[in-house]
Amino acid sequence: MKNEMTVTALQRLPVYINYLKSLDEDVKYISSGAIARALGMGEVLVRKDLAFTSQGRTRVGYMRGELISALEKRLGCNDVKNAAIVGAGGLGSALLAYGGFVNYGINIVAAYDNDAAKIGTQIAGKPVCGMDDLQKSLEENNVTLAVLCVPAKYAQQVADKLLSCGIKAILNFAPVLLQVPQGAVVRNIDVAANLAVLRSLM
Amino acid sequence: MKNEMTVTALQRLPVYINYLKSLDEDVKYISSGAIARALGMGEVLVRKDLAFTSQGRTRVGYMRGELISALEKRLGCNDVKNAAIVGAGGLGSALLAYGGFVNYGINIVAAYDNDAAKIGTQIAGKPVCGMDDLQKSLEENNVTLAVLCVPAKYAQQVADKLLSCGIKAILNFAPVLLQVPQGAVVRNIDVAANLAVLRSLM
Repeated sequence: MKNEMTVTALQRLPVYINYLKSLDEDVKYISSGAIARALGMGEVLVRKDLAFTSQGRTRVGYMRGELISALEKRLGCNDVKNAAIVGAGGLGSALLAYGGFVNYGINIVAAYDNDAAKIGTQIAGKPVCGMDDLQKSLEENNVTLAVLCVPAKYAQQVADKLLSCGIKAILNFAPVLLQVPQGAVVRNIDVAANLAVLRSLM
Repeated sequence: MKNEMTVTALQRLPVYINYLKSLDEDVKYISSGAIARALGMGEVLVRKDLAFTSQGRTRVGYMRGELISALEKRLGCNDVKNAAIVGAGGLGSALLAYGGFVNYGINIVAAYDNDAAKIGTQIAGKPVCGMDDLQKSLEENNVTLAVLCVPAKYAQQVADKLLSCGIKAILNFAPVLLQVPQGAVVRNIDVAANLAVLRSLM
């Protein structure tokens, strides 16, 4: 069933996980209807999403703990992966200090930057490495996932370098449409664009 | 036509704008087909989205400059709004220093924090204000839009306070499902969840 889940559906899994984890400890069972109401979503959609991971029981619903585990497994959280932050400026530094990645089985092992003043230092306990000898360093750190936090004008060239050095997937914060070869995966977070969409909904 | 555009379609407008702006200056005209191919999207979808804002010309396509203006207008970029960053930690500070909001007609005027050591200082030239007397301060700064960068455990209570003090829309970085009254608008950016989804697509 793995390949039947769309990206849009995958994106909803963290929302379910966060909601289920936020409930009081004494909530042992929950129905798809209750989840749908709490999240303001359609029940059919929720039931369909959850059917990819778990089997609910008639009248009882899902065992909450089991459902969280199943959703986390479906999202790949058990397959721990190392990631690097590329660009150790303000945003990169903030992400290095953020503890939430570990909840999804993602281990931020290092930052990369080309600022000589930063290379060799640590930010939030993580080493800042240089961009020379990148392939060797990424291999040593066993990193295949990168979070791109460099200024927009450098984003494409840094992405090219990362992909040529073994990175397979990039979370891109630069407001730039990255051109990447087939097989590479990119997701974009454009903070300003998100704020603009929000403003247009006011 | 304004209300016919879905949130999903609105989210695509910044993607078109960024792409159109990235083209060489001598590209004066562009077709919906060319945009669709460059962005890896379906042409029907692109044509439908653009039809909300502009009229293409047969065989010639869209005048690029006019199309950018029309898309920006549709997204509300001409209606400049003041916004505040709430929580002046690592992420908040990084966003205060980010210059990209102005491209969408969003003016970050101040940060708010409850850390006495930060209140009264400036970050990236923007004042850090306290959370006391919040309503008066937001009114003085004419802020109705907030970017929430506080730790997850405080997100709901800070959101409640913001909404009670006149904020109408929140861009929320905390991995928490905010409960907000009808009429308030929330968008969520969960960075760790985005990275988890990316990893599951590798």
